[in-house]
Amino acid sequence: MAELTLYIGNRTYSSWSLRAWLVLKQAGADFEEVVIPLRAPGTRTLEIQRYSPSGKVPALQHGALTIWESLAIAEYAAEIFPAAKLWPEARDARAVARSVSAEMASSFTALRTALPMNVRRKIQGVAITDAASEDIARVQVIWNDCRSRFGQGGEFLFGRFSVADAMYAPVATRFDTYGVELDAVSRRYVASILGLPAMQAWVAKAREEPHIIEAYEAIGVVGV
Amino acid sequence: MAELTLYIGNRTYSSWSLRAWLVLKQAGADFEEVVIPLRAPGTRTLEIQRYSPSGKVPALQHGALTIWESLAIAEYAAEIFPAAKLWPEARDARAVARSVSAEMASSFTALRTALPMNVRRKIQGVAITDAASEDIARVQVIWNDCRSRFGQGGEFLFGRFSVADAMYAPVATRFDTYGVELDAVSRRYVASILGLPAMQAWVAKAREEPHIIEAYEAIGVVGV
Repeated sequence: MAELTLYIGNRTYSSWSLRAWLVLKQAGADFEEVVIPLRAPGTRTLEIQRYSPSGKVPALQHGALTIWESLAIAEYAAEIFPAAKLWPEARDARAVARSVSAEMASSFTALRTALPMNVRRKIQGVAITDAASEDIARVQVIWNDCRSRFGQGGEFLFGRFSVADAMYAPVATRFDTYGVELDAVSRRYVASILGLPAMQAWVAKAREEPHIIEAYEAIGVVGV
Repeated sequence: MAELTLYIGNRTYSSWSLRAWLVLKQAGADFEEVVIPLRAPGTRTLEIQRYSPSGKVPALQHGALTIWESLAIAEYAAEIFPAAKLWPEARDARAVARSVSAEMASSFTALRTALPMNVRRKIQGVAITDAASEDIARVQVIWNDCRSRFGQGGEFLFGRFSVADAMYAPVATRFDTYGVELDAVSRRYVASILGLPAMQAWVAKAREEPHIIEAYEAIGVVGV
């Protein structure tokens, strides 16, 4: 099925790209990757609009069809690769997996603003706002809840890898990048995400990227 | 199936509540409604946390299971009410329906901030920022695109009513409330949404609500 093409932003910074890419990789999909370097994550550009109707990455092209938004790409991947079981099989677990995935997509603005994804670096001493701290606490509540209710039989939120893990993978990299203090369950979960061969491949390719977005690299070094 | 309970915010202002409620209504679901008056849409409160893990409405309780986030509730409704065909049946249409639904959930912040939902009123003379104008233009592109590619056989985005219509219904009410100028296709579509018996029932109940959120009522009357 090499007629699948995923358009992504800079691997270093584009957390939404990582989510869709990880879903496809974990599904065992055969797909082309096209990187469109961004000036800043989240920007709409005319170049991206050639590939993505919303002007944002990621976008997945499958023959004549274009699908955009990480969650919609994940649902599509779950449909065309049913053997990968990208959503939990039990209805209640699947409902909660979709709830926490949608919450990730719609919330955590403070966390995302304070701690932008930067998979190439470890950055110390970043001041974390109260709002970002609340978000960090909420993420850990979600992780602990999913692990304790549905995590049997695997090291991921719902046991084996699911779309929900792809949605939270960029958060795991942020906690690692910025050295955020976590409870024991969350620490182990971050290690599981970062230990995925696909995640390591993503980070390795990010390290080869020449692009630098100054605004994100400057976080934590203001005044130094 | 009266063991379904939907927790919602003020009908006047809570656009996310409307989305989930409309999906369930259009599915023909039998459910209890519990209104938790908000001080401001989007706020997390301790009271809401008793019903919703994220501290936000809407949340759907089904027996011992709680599902939150409008999109996750919609996916759950699509699963438990398959006869309602809440997603388009063709795979490509369904993929696009999920893309535009997820885009609604993750984007249009400028539009949502500039023109908060207020289904009780018509408000004139609101200054629309450039960013909000861009959002308004993008919404119309989406509506025109869906109607022309997938809208045959009905008056909604994908012909018959789907989750995508529920996601955009609050935007239709905003365009009506604030008298936003629209192209002909979008005008007809807004009329189709507002003409739904379920929408009219929602607005009628909103008119009976005693709650007022001053910050939203003051939009457009600053300086008057």
